[in-house]
Amino acid sequence: MSRRKYAIGLDFGTESGRAVLVDVRRGRELATAVYPYPHGVIDRALPVDGRPVRLWPDWALQDPADYIRTFQRIVPAVLRQSGIDPADVIGLGIDFTACTMLPVLADGTPLCTLPEYRRNPHAWVKLWKHHAAQPQADRINASARALGERWIDRYGGKISSEWFISKALQILDEAPEIYQAASRLVEAADWAVWQLTGQELRNACTAGYAAMGSKRDGTPSAEFFAAVNPRLPELLATKLSANVVPIGGTAGGLTAQAARWTGLLPGTPVAVPIIDSYACVPAATVTGPDRMVSIMGTSNTLIVLGEEEKIVPGIAGFAEDGVIPGLFAFAAGQSAVGDSFAWFVANAVPPPYHAAAHRRKLSVHQWLEAEAAQHRPGESGLLALDWWNGNRSVLVDADLSGLVLGATLATRPPELYRALIEATAFGTRVIIESFEGSGITVNELIACGGLPERSRLLMQIYADVTGRELKVTAAPQTSALGAAMLGAVAAGQAQGGYASLVDAAPHMARLKPHTYRPEPQAQKVYEQLYREYLTLHDYFGRGGNDVLKRLKRLKTAGRAER
Amino acid sequence: MSRRKYAIGLDFGTESGRAVLVDVRRGRELATAVYPYPHGVIDRALPVDGRPVRLWPDWALQDPADYIRTFQRIVPAVLRQSGIDPADVIGLGIDFTACTMLPVLADGTPLCTLPEYRRNPHAWVKLWKHHAAQPQADRINASARALGERWIDRYGGKISSEWFISKALQILDEAPEIYQAASRLVEAADWAVWQLTGQELRNACTAGYAAMGSKRDGTPSAEFFAAVNPRLPELLATKLSANVVPIGGTAGGLTAQAARWTGLLPGTPVAVPIIDSYACVPAATVTGPDRMVSIMGTSNTLIVLGEEEKIVPGIAGFAEDGVIPGLFAFAAGQSAVGDSFAWFVANAVPPPYHAAAHRRKLSVHQWLEAEAAQHRPGESGLLALDWWNGNRSVLVDADLSGLVLGATLATRPPELYRALIEATAFGTRVIIESFEGSGITVNELIACGGLPERSRLLMQIYADVTGRELKVTAAPQTSALGAAMLGAVAAGQAQGGYASLVDAAPHMARLKPHTYRPEPQAQKVYEQLYREYLTLHDYFGRGGNDVLKRLKRLKTAGRAER
Repeated sequence: MSRRKYAIGLDFGTESGRAVLVDVRRGRELATAVYPYPHGVIDRALPVDGRPVRLWPDWALQDPADYIRTFQRIVPAVLRQSGIDPADVIGLGIDFTACTMLPVLADGTPLCTLPEYRRNPHAWVKLWKHHAAQPQADRINASARALGERWIDRYGGKISSEWFISKALQILDEAPEIYQAASRLVEAADWAVWQLTGQELRNACTAGYAAMGSKRDGTPSAEFFAAVNPRLPELLATKLSANVVPIGGTAGGLTAQAARWTGLLPGTPVAVPIIDSYACVPAATVTGPDRMVSIMGTSNTLIVLGEEEKIVPGIAGFAEDGVIPGLFAFAAGQSAVGDSFAWFVANAVPPPYHAAAHRRKLSVHQWLEAEAAQHRPGESGLLALDWWNGNRSVLVDADLSGLVLGATLATRPPELYRALIEATAFGTRVIIESFEGSGITVNELIACGGLPERSRLLMQIYADVTGRELKVTAAPQTSALGAAMLGAVAAGQAQGGYASLVDAAPHMARLKPHTYRPEPQAQKVYEQLYREYLTLHDYFGRGGNDVLKRLKRLKTAGRAER
Repeated sequence: MSRRKYAIGLDFGTESGRAVLVDVRRGRELATAVYPYPHGVIDRALPVDGRPVRLWPDWALQDPADYIRTFQRIVPAVLRQSGIDPADVIGLGIDFTACTMLPVLADGTPLCTLPEYRRNPHAWVKLWKHHAAQPQADRINASARALGERWIDRYGGKISSEWFISKALQILDEAPEIYQAASRLVEAADWAVWQLTGQELRNACTAGYAAMGSKRDGTPSAEFFAAVNPRLPELLATKLSANVVPIGGTAGGLTAQAARWTGLLPGTPVAVPIIDSYACVPAATVTGPDRMVSIMGTSNTLIVLGEEEKIVPGIAGFAEDGVIPGLFAFAAGQSAVGDSFAWFVANAVPPPYHAAAHRRKLSVHQWLEAEAAQHRPGESGLLALDWWNGNRSVLVDADLSGLVLGATLATRPPELYRALIEATAFGTRVIIESFEGSGITVNELIACGGLPERSRLLMQIYADVTGRELKVTAAPQTSALGAAMLGAVAAGQAQGGYASLVDAAPHMARLKPHTYRPEPQAQKVYEQLYREYLTLHDYFGRGGNDVLKRLKRLKTAGRAER
């Protein structure tokens, strides 16, 4: 009997990096380690000596050195924890937030590590939630509309301030000296793999999703780019690697230096990296169409695979070969989900609820949920729009903001908490309907991420609001498992791994037995609330109604039914 | 030199009764006493023995025995406190919430004190904020519209569920046995005076304000009433006293029994009672047109005097001779002001703010205000509609509810607190504009009540939003002082009192030296926010907008200006 083989998945999140070590045969997690980035999200001032360099609102940066430290900490940690022989680790996969990007020299050296650029914010890593490139995104969208560029329809008619092109253009606009000094503008995912393997490449997932590249149509016209900024065509021609590689392949083997960092053997296969949310797709057992994966955390990402290229309004991005070669991965996002619940708990829950939670040894979230679960749909008379961090789906507008209506002197915090949960469920339904309206079927939802673990009420509300069965992934660290699956595929069948993610998924991915099914009575009430949500969504989001009376009636009716 | 003379004002509020004893010459307060009603507001279950009698939502009752206990407690208390000889008390005035009404026998005995009716909620006092007669108000309004009744224009086109006629109709509809047993349906103000003097009367203030009586036009047609309910004409003809008496007169002298209750001499003159808010008008130095009195507390009441009858949309009521004989008193109301701030503090302020307030020995309100005062108008990006308890002014709709928009992950509690204050200021401006649009000038605002004492920020925001100078009454208990002024007028000049409120005001009423003047820069920003408020007010209140972007822009502009 041959020795068991293992793969490691490295998940680079917003606040921390995480490693999982899994056995390749069954996907079982043997060890896990987390490392909070020392500099976290840099959004107030650069971590530099001397006079402080303060950042403007909407800026969000990271320190690339934190990524290297992550390698050095979490890989040895999972090896130590599991007691596995490094020789039995057949592959390493990486998933990363996106678009998270940085300017580097030809050898990969980040400009922010050089003394002459260290005090320039544009030399640092622009994190996915850096929103200061909104003026650039606005200009790109205006120019695309003016020139009648058809490619923009693939992205819901609007690109986001979070995208690579918006961030690159911001550097070109605001920091020509950084633009000049940078040999490359590179995705952090690709930069991380570069540091491990010495190989520069662009993964098809971020390239397609965040950089407006399409295997079929290529990038938008040079004419269009020139209209936005005369130097933009040059930027795209010279500052990005032309080596675009599909997901599911090998980026290279670990260098000697990277082997020392990690404790793994030199030459250990490293997979082509993938966006963190996309890594969840195979780990949620999804390798084909009709089943949507919902990655639920601080924000929600919804991904579905399709066989044909479709124009989907409100899509956050799509990438051919972005998860499974030959299939299109379509993604949409909700920009504040868990974030808005956390905001509520930190900013809007009075002391008695904190005390009650404490007495019961529950978190405030758990206690609010227990109280909120006592209410029936519609009973609070509240309705919210889930735009606490703008709208990243069908409206693609970071300037939108949240709304609560229906508050009375009798409104209590658990009701508001529930209204926020419901609002995010309505937001998910808007996205599902946008997909289905474009010919992409969504029969089932598979939830992963932190929220499904923590909130049964949230899961049931999502099932009731969307009218679809909700399943939950068994692995708690879904994206890291997906990365480990990519590691197993990078190793290949001959080394004890798999030929493809399609082959790997039935072995390494699994779902929980308990699922959430829509309850007809709740569905009926949520159907009415959803119509109200849509009316307000379009009124406030797309530039007239007796909704408050209808809500009050729903509330009165809910009470009368008791 | 003649002995000093004194008057006592008795203010019957929502939760308690209050007495002030003042000297007639200068209005100086010598003693004050408060008595919280033992049964307070009865809104869950009747205070009866045996099986509980639960109340429906929106019910709000009181126990008339609490009013008698109030006489017995607070009048002796102020006499004791001041050491005044009861013979030197020349008059007693009463102000009361309205419409607060009850069914009684021919001798004034409340039906709820009789064993056979004690378990019937309709036998008790319906407090002003009893909102369960909304279906009756809806029917009255529909019938008035259907029959083209012109009188309803005098009341803003809609009467409220709080009004006498709505409450009386609810008794007729829902409790015919109570209707049958009641010789009279009487305002609590008039009932209280009846208990003191043995004289039944209807004061012109509540009669005009709350019972749709007009000295000039009489009540609406019998035809109209019959259309609402065939027995309604009979109700109005037989169950209300025909003895309508102007404000500023004498109801009678204290009976021997009432003298024992109070410790005053039998025969002491008792004034015709007045609605609590109207009592503030003379006490705020206002005895003529152009100057609006704003009584700011849990709710706001705005009253202005005029020489001619005008049709004012959104008026809460008006009464000829309701304050000053020969003048019309026009009143409008905002149903949740201090109440909405209290709701916020109790339901939406997290522990750190409570702790910070505690450390500084401040109330949470004070600490939130101190923090909110750090923000400039428009800076939070927030806008609210002040409908936490419906809208009692131009929309006259208790089914409306509150709204906050503009919330982001960065929104903090003091910003929301300030947005609620601003929303109530916008609500006041809507009312002022409605008055001015009807030809009733409002040059100046005189604030009284609890809020002006406590919140300088609130006062400044009201000045900035309304563009008018705000003055504040010097007497902390303005309505009780007004009642005492009525007591002095009831006594008359010969007894050391005054011939009229116009004569009394220059002596007994005064304002604080500090006033609040509008700041031009703040006025400019609030002008924009008010336009947004109006658009939303009409969209949500009158049965379609890119407001969120404009707010975001205002916020960004506010930051850029720093």
